Amino acid sequence: MTVPTTPLFTDLYQLTMMQGYMLTGLNKRMACFDLFFRNNPFGGGYTVAAGLEDALKFLQNLHFSEDDLEYLVSLKFFKKDFIDYLKDFRFQGEVYAVPEGTLVFPMEPILRVHAPLDQCQLVETGLLNIINFQTLIATKAARVCQEAGSAAVLEFGLRRAQGPDGALTASRSAYIGGCTATSNVEAGKVYGIPIGGTHAHSWVMAFESELESFRAFAEIYPDNTVLLVDTYNTLRSGVPNAVKVGLEMKEKGKKLLGIRLDSGDLAFLSAEARKMLDGAGLTGVKIFTSNELDEHIIHDMKIQGAAIDAYGVGTRMITASGEPALSGVYKMSAMKDGDGEWLMKIKLTEGMKKGTLPGVKQVWRLRDKKGEMMADIMELESARPDFEKGVWGYHPAVEYEKKFFGNIEKADPLLKPVFKDGKIETEFPPLADIRDRVKKQLNGLHPTMRRLLNPHIYKVSLGEKLFEETRRMRRGV
Amino acid sequence: MTVPTTPLFTDLYQLTMMQGYMLTGLNKRMACFDLFFRNNPFGGGYTVAAGLEDALKFLQNLHFSEDDLEYLVSLKFFKKDFIDYLKDFRFQGEVYAVPEGTLVFPMEPILRVHAPLDQCQLVETGLLNIINFQTLIATKAARVCQEAGSAAVLEFGLRRAQGPDGALTASRSAYIGGCTATSNVEAGKVYGIPIGGTHAHSWVMAFESELESFRAFAEIYPDNTVLLVDTYNTLRSGVPNAVKVGLEMKEKGKKLLGIRLDSGDLAFLSAEARKMLDGAGLTGVKIFTSNELDEHIIHDMKIQGAAIDAYGVGTRMITASGEPALSGVYKMSAMKDGDGEWLMKIKLTEGMKKGTLPGVKQVWRLRDKKGEMMADIMELESARPDFEKGVWGYHPAVEYEKKFFGNIEKADPLLKPVFKDGKIETEFPPLADIRDRVKKQLNGLHPTMRRLLNPHIYKVSLGEKLFEETRRMRRGV
Repeated sequence: MTVPTTPLFTDLYQLTMMQGYMLTGLNKRMACFDLFFRNNPFGGGYTVAAGLEDALKFLQNLHFSEDDLEYLVSLKFFKKDFIDYLKDFRFQGEVYAVPEGTLVFPMEPILRVHAPLDQCQLVETGLLNIINFQTLIATKAARVCQEAGSAAVLEFGLRRAQGPDGALTASRSAYIGGCTATSNVEAGKVYGIPIGGTHAHSWVMAFESELESFRAFAEIYPDNTVLLVDTYNTLRSGVPNAVKVGLEMKEKGKKLLGIRLDSGDLAFLSAEARKMLDGAGLTGVKIFTSNELDEHIIHDMKIQGAAIDAYGVGTRMITASGEPALSGVYKMSAMKDGDGEWLMKIKLTEGMKKGTLPGVKQVWRLRDKKGEMMADIMELESARPDFEKGVWGYHPAVEYEKKFFGNIEKADPLLKPVFKDGKIETEFPPLADIRDRVKKQLNGLHPTMRRLLNPHIYKVSLGEKLFEETRRMRRGV
Repeated sequence: MTVPTTPLFTDLYQLTMMQGYMLTGLNKRMACFDLFFRNNPFGGGYTVAAGLEDALKFLQNLHFSEDDLEYLVSLKFFKKDFIDYLKDFRFQGEVYAVPEGTLVFPMEPILRVHAPLDQCQLVETGLLNIINFQTLIATKAARVCQEAGSAAVLEFGLRRAQGPDGALTASRSAYIGGCTATSNVEAGKVYGIPIGGTHAHSWVMAFESELESFRAFAEIYPDNTVLLVDTYNTLRSGVPNAVKVGLEMKEKGKKLLGIRLDSGDLAFLSAEARKMLDGAGLTGVKIFTSNELDEHIIHDMKIQGAAIDAYGVGTRMITASGEPALSGVYKMSAMKDGDGEWLMKIKLTEGMKKGTLPGVKQVWRLRDKKGEMMADIMELESARPDFEKGVWGYHPAVEYEKKFFGNIEKADPLLKPVFKDGKIETEFPPLADIRDRVKKQLNGLHPTMRRLLNPHIYKVSLGEKLFEETRRMRRGV
């Protein structure tokens, strides 16, 4: 239900071009398109690939319903032959992609489509929509969780997300990125993600007094009592009442799990609340916080010695505030000629800012003996670099910059075949495994590359063959 | 299909609280909740309300499916009585709301729910999700279209939107805000919005040469030829080739509709392209632009004398860049006591920054003789201000600030009954009418309040009764 099955989930011009390809006889020519982005979001040093499962389900289920076709006919813009052709349309291409949860970097193809030109074209918008957003949120969440360190991060974004689905798939991506749980019940049901939450101010306001509301909550949920302490006054009323209830629970052999701070200066309030709780002997009671948090605020609060055990992060994570869209694009890199040979294609405008890299490409991830990521090399798939001997890597934009990579322990191809003959040809791992992969990979990335601001740049270079072809085509030879 | 019907489209704590209300006997007590926001987004001077149609459909169709209930049982957190109660759950409250396309301002209730406490609670998250996002995008689009003036604005955001639905409902909101058309075909089908588009770089790259690709497009779409001129080099290749094709079309009695610039310095390039087109006698050919546009860039380009006839605006409008979430909240303002009398409720923390206004409220829009909007007055619904005599308006936060509003020609209540006894009790106007209403209202707002930056603030004041009650409750009397 989260993945559209209608090919109308596209830009009009894709259909316009499809019809044009049909009329010019280009539609059956095989083409190769790369999906990639040009910058790590948020000024960061890495990006977490996500959305592949939905993207492939989209491709597999894609078909025009009778309704869809009727609508297209009503536009009086498409010829009958074309509409007839769409009736049996199915995406029959091949797809190569990096697994979800892989760290990826600018200019690398993270998904590569081989299909007849018109099929490549139709799916562009849907693939971009799905991959751009899910990758964006997984990356944002990874940044937030990285700063939270051992503290839990709960995703509370549903009410401020960009639409119902903007919340649902984002909850999944946030979990992949490292969140512990979501408040979104539907996401729990659909994806099997752990769900969590406390109570709202309205709970407190519904009772005669704050204390009474706390007591009622503790009695009903003795194993999950987290009390929201800022409805009236955090330090004069909320925390003292929570302490009272915490001590009452203690007497009954129960345990107050935590309090939640949702306004004010959280660094200050958490330290004060910690003292009040500890002073009353409630040292085990946890402090949850929420209120417009993001990776920068968490980073800052930790420096100030905030006493926080769990962060509820909503708006700013679920909408990727700071950079609410990934700059992902999908560009033609090759097309077969009449003899079935690949012809490379390039787009030149504004150099690397809006240009492309030609050819059918693979991305190789080089690792050293410790298993740390050294660099990535993009190379034509037809080339077989000898990684044991070491390879030259060329800067994607600056032609005179190159670097030799020796002592390569391992070189793994990132793009794997995942879709063939109209069908998904890969298994989707459990989300928890994808989440673990992200954690493990981030640990294998040099800490300077994980900085929030001005990170050290992870090198993505062109292999020799790709470099030569790119240089040749840029010169128009 | 764009509106969820499952009540699991909520935060877990709503269900936790519902069960708690049931166990404490509070669930049947009538409550009143206000949906409002605290700041106009983007630092602007107004907000365009949107999303009501989806919000009410959500309320009307809400029910727990067997699947939903099974999932809740599996959590082992809810008692059997509660699950049984949910089986027949339907939202039976009353809703009062401002019509879509109404200009609204901080602190004003734009939707008010009267229902048993547990029903009020369950729908909070869904209502906020729907209204927050759609209102945000309608407002963003209104700002973009305001700057574009008489030039058309086409919404091209699908590929970068926050999920499939983040695109669909946003296309609707963007249209309400003033856009001419969308590229999103599904939005065209679902909402009947005009759709539009040109062609992509891949069209150009699929042919042997740019000129050949332009000729093919012009031949296939002679009535809608807009040529993308930046695949190789805008001024040296793209525009000259477009001019060539434009002249060829002219000879055949056809007309090149336009060219599209998608990279580089659009202000400079559009002026140069205009000269080249005009120099060749193609004065009627329009210049379309795209590439990371927003209201600020359009404002700036116009000052520089850019020669642009239509703007394709994608990423930054569809994701509301600058402020990707509206700060909408939903807060209890009153609850009935055992005798059925309304008891006012208030949340005090951090004053107006996170506090609320008590009581069942109406919003009155005051207009002068010219029909211009003078100010809004929030007042308890039980009060009947005598607008003919003039009224005092009190600042919502600063108690010593007040202003007398005289010469009121008209005072309209903004909140209208729209939902009763489980059913929608209002007609939804066609989107084009809502769009017209936005335009008309913006024309009735003083120009200083429409500024992009540092706008003059439109006054929203408390009426006398509401002011007195608020002051009393803030003092804890």
